[in-house]
Amino acid sequence: MLRMSKLFVRTLRENPADAEVDSHKLLVRAGYIRRAAPGVYSWLPLGLRVLRKVEQIIREEMDAAGAQEMHFPALLPREPYEATGRWDDYGPNLFRLKDRRDNDYLLAPTHEEMFTLAVKDMCNSYKDLPLNLYQFQTKYRDEARPRAGLLRTREFVMKDAYSFDIDDAGLDASYQIMRDAYEKTFTRMGLPYVIVQATSGAMGGSRSEEFLSPIEVGEDTFVVSDGGFAANTEAVTTPAQEDLDYSDIPELDTLDTPDSKTIAALVDFANEVRPREDRPWQASDTMKNVVVVATHPDGERELLVIGMPGDREADLKRIEANMAPAEIEMATPEDIEKHPELVPGYIGPTNIGPNSPNRTTDEDGNPSGSVRYLLDPHVRRGSAWITGGDADQKHSFNVVYGRDFEADGFIEAVEVREGDEAPDGSGPLRIQRGIEIGHIFQLGRKYAEALDLKVLDQNGKAVVVTMGSYGIGVSRIVAALAELNHDEIGLKWPIDVAPAHVHILATGKEDEVFETAEKIGEELSAGGVEVIYDDRQKVSAGVKFKDYELLGLPYAIVVGRGLKNGVVELRDRRAGTSVEVAVADAADEMRKLLS
Amino acid sequence: MLRMSKLFVRTLRENPADAEVDSHKLLVRAGYIRRAAPGVYSWLPLGLRVLRKVEQIIREEMDAAGAQEMHFPALLPREPYEATGRWDDYGPNLFRLKDRRDNDYLLAPTHEEMFTLAVKDMCNSYKDLPLNLYQFQTKYRDEARPRAGLLRTREFVMKDAYSFDIDDAGLDASYQIMRDAYEKTFTRMGLPYVIVQATSGAMGGSRSEEFLSPIEVGEDTFVVSDGGFAANTEAVTTPAQEDLDYSDIPELDTLDTPDSKTIAALVDFANEVRPREDRPWQASDTMKNVVVVATHPDGERELLVIGMPGDREADLKRIEANMAPAEIEMATPEDIEKHPELVPGYIGPTNIGPNSPNRTTDEDGNPSGSVRYLLDPHVRRGSAWITGGDADQKHSFNVVYGRDFEADGFIEAVEVREGDEAPDGSGPLRIQRGIEIGHIFQLGRKYAEALDLKVLDQNGKAVVVTMGSYGIGVSRIVAALAELNHDEIGLKWPIDVAPAHVHILATGKEDEVFETAEKIGEELSAGGVEVIYDDRQKVSAGVKFKDYELLGLPYAIVVGRGLKNGVVELRDRRAGTSVEVAVADAADEMRKLLS
Repeated sequence: MLRMSKLFVRTLRENPADAEVDSHKLLVRAGYIRRAAPGVYSWLPLGLRVLRKVEQIIREEMDAAGAQEMHFPALLPREPYEATGRWDDYGPNLFRLKDRRDNDYLLAPTHEEMFTLAVKDMCNSYKDLPLNLYQFQTKYRDEARPRAGLLRTREFVMKDAYSFDIDDAGLDASYQIMRDAYEKTFTRMGLPYVIVQATSGAMGGSRSEEFLSPIEVGEDTFVVSDGGFAANTEAVTTPAQEDLDYSDIPELDTLDTPDSKTIAALVDFANEVRPREDRPWQASDTMKNVVVVATHPDGERELLVIGMPGDREADLKRIEANMAPAEIEMATPEDIEKHPELVPGYIGPTNIGPNSPNRTTDEDGNPSGSVRYLLDPHVRRGSAWITGGDADQKHSFNVVYGRDFEADGFIEAVEVREGDEAPDGSGPLRIQRGIEIGHIFQLGRKYAEALDLKVLDQNGKAVVVTMGSYGIGVSRIVAALAELNHDEIGLKWPIDVAPAHVHILATGKEDEVFETAEKIGEELSAGGVEVIYDDRQKVSAGVKFKDYELLGLPYAIVVGRGLKNGVVELRDRRAGTSVEVAVADAADEMRKLLS
Repeated sequence: MLRMSKLFVRTLRENPADAEVDSHKLLVRAGYIRRAAPGVYSWLPLGLRVLRKVEQIIREEMDAAGAQEMHFPALLPREPYEATGRWDDYGPNLFRLKDRRDNDYLLAPTHEEMFTLAVKDMCNSYKDLPLNLYQFQTKYRDEARPRAGLLRTREFVMKDAYSFDIDDAGLDASYQIMRDAYEKTFTRMGLPYVIVQATSGAMGGSRSEEFLSPIEVGEDTFVVSDGGFAANTEAVTTPAQEDLDYSDIPELDTLDTPDSKTIAALVDFANEVRPREDRPWQASDTMKNVVVVATHPDGERELLVIGMPGDREADLKRIEANMAPAEIEMATPEDIEKHPELVPGYIGPTNIGPNSPNRTTDEDGNPSGSVRYLLDPHVRRGSAWITGGDADQKHSFNVVYGRDFEADGFIEAVEVREGDEAPDGSGPLRIQRGIEIGHIFQLGRKYAEALDLKVLDQNGKAVVVTMGSYGIGVSRIVAALAELNHDEIGLKWPIDVAPAHVHILATGKEDEVFETAEKIGEELSAGGVEVIYDDRQKVSAGVKFKDYELLGLPYAIVVGRGLKNGVVELRDRRAGTSVEVAVADAADEMRKLLS
């Protein structure tokens, strides 16, 4: 039995100044977590109890799925990560340090390398496979923008599992077992989820899916169609379309377009000066060329121009996902100034990338001499555009891709929109936001090849092992649960992850109140029920109720005014209901509620 | 039920090349741990099971003692450690790193600062005290010489607890509660221990005791007397003695002493050239002046000369403990060369330290101009010595401390010897070696003052809180248990920390053997007994027995040859006994053994 008089908790009536989302506000206010540094949190006793319960549910489902728990260090030597390229690929997201002998170490963001080496050390035959190993481990990523409390942190608890198989069919089976285990795990926690196609990022591999819990404050945007398509927007691809016939398109023509720096002004100008016969010009007839900077893991800042329809916004997260491991940001005016061929607000496609007179190609076939020019696939081959005229206050009309300019390639660059067609033709897309609670990858042979993990097959031939990796964000799940289980006055934990089951409030000054509350608490505790007992002597009933509501245990027993009539009150925080029961029946009735 | 056919374990017949101690050899050979980097280990499934059991015993005893579990980050900002001085004091033992914004971080060696700040955040009244908070946490120390497997590592699991009290009496009480809890904890694990006085090192504070498990390969040397004195040798003090009367001692006299560079040669020479009347000269009549280098946390290398009787060796660990946080090593010939007044092999006390003509004192009273000269307290005031003559092949006789030279102070510098008198007069000391499994400190107000942790007392006055800190080396305990529970063929775990309770061996080729073994295993598992079942089909009985002995579960059931007579064998690995029982009784009989 946890006594409020002793419990290391302090509730706050005010939201912390830096908190944007409800889970962050409430977990801090209710005394579950505290910030230690940007994106680094301490777990107070109640928070730790929730974290451990979440962990235990995951552990049970991993064990049931045949995975074996072990534990790797967080502090790791550089060499294995060098071998797989991740020492560099993680760029500034990796915490790197040196020991007293000047050797390079890292704080592991995930442990593919170490599990691969462990299996290499311990296994040498197909008979040792399939194998699935996992751990709970504190992970480190030096996020550029830690935010939203536990949702995006730099030190966090993760369950990471790794499967090892002799062939692709084995990997498919192992992947499916983990996928099923994840479904069971999140269902047990009462966490709704959608499984969506995802990109693999720095992890590599051929196939990956995310488990997203649909929550408005989530960082991930995903799309679903009625026909069953579901993907993180980062992983959405634009359906391929046939080339357009441009034989009727007039020649490229550059006009003075005063005061037309915005797309809207340009469209107005076009409709005024050169109206179409069939319909008015619209934003989707214009093409804008957006300048971004890709910072590669080696620190190189590459300027890139991306052409896209003027009615769509650039989505930097999608661009970044498709250019992993580079980080993407908008180019600054200073970046653009270094390239006089780029006239801000009037950048056209006909002078850049492969169309630039300065473009050369080195012996490896890599372009140089001019910045790379990429197109979003909404720019179809043969389509005609109004776009920048490469001079101040000038735009060009009838600029045809494939006739007037070429590009260095395609990249999914624009925001996916509600109503866009699903890539598999399963209908229009709806857009939702969610929190990533799990991510599973078919890694394939990337890590096994880099670290030379082979086993002998049935014919005695050494073959490279194929791997999967399976993560659950344990500490992030605590935040997701808090987002999904609260109201304006506090948290409302599901019973299986609540820090305790029953909150007993002694509201009154009489000894009898405290004695009765204590007795009921002892009786419930003795039967294995986890109880928080608010035994504070000089604290008002009002404060005790507020604390109970904020802390959010699913049930309460209020011992107070009713006692003179021989009754206490049983409250159900989640249902918002309450009943009075005889004192003698209180423990029994509560046990019925709990079971 | 863990099946050997699936379990991620691989036993080795050879000792790992880098293993010096039995626990390291056996834990690696039996597949409990693997080295990931120098002083950094991975826990394989069986090792993790032992670690978790040790952890759980500690948790239960901490909870029973009223301590509350929480969890702090390992990655911490510099500022709090700067405030207490530990950012510097830890010197090269601290892993330091920078984040992407160039802010300083550390990997916490212990968490006094964070707990202090948490209490400052959450508590403001004497009513909130006493308070005891703890965590299990991965700790980091960049040890200069990681060694002996889990005994001295750079990443390790520690339980650290912190008590907070309003006054000294409260701290005494909190300290005693933890001390008692530690005794219960180690007793439950079957770990013998001795509680010894200790030095506080970089931790600071007024009183500290270590729990040492007496094990020959331990890193710590401690002493005990029949009268009940017990201390780490680092903490032993030399009993104070009265000054000697030197009125009869002749004047200092310097002789040519060819070929007398060693103490033994010098004694021989003295007995030959200038024999004593009362008895022969002996090594204890000579004084040697040992040159060491103290590396201070700021990186400064300070040369120090320490005078001590010639029959005793310098103990660098004792010197280091008494000069914390500096690190101590012997001076190199190059270090000494920089000081021409120090003639190697012939250093005398009359020209150095306060006796040097170059000695000056700055305005703060700090000496400069000559190296500091310290004495081991075995050099009594008024004692006369044969010692270096400050010139090649010369020694001086009748060199009296207090007449012919002075010193800058005392330092406990020599090895404690079997038979030395206990400081409290409780008899001669015996010397033992042990592994430090716990360390408790009365920190006092050092951290609370540095971080301004105050609460209001009963009179409404703000008072500084007084603290204790209490550590248990969780991962090191696994090694200590292995050291204490093994024989030449493998481990022999006590039941409460064993990775599982019963090892079932199917030794035979018949289906019946496997079916019977499986059935007994299922029956035991269903009743909560933890079973490892060696179900491997094509592995010989010999290999299975060897693996069982190496893995070291306390009990085994051997299903094999006896089966045709309807019996199986029950083995007790620790007792070395075995009995045959009827197949039908096997599970019951095993349960009896276990209870």
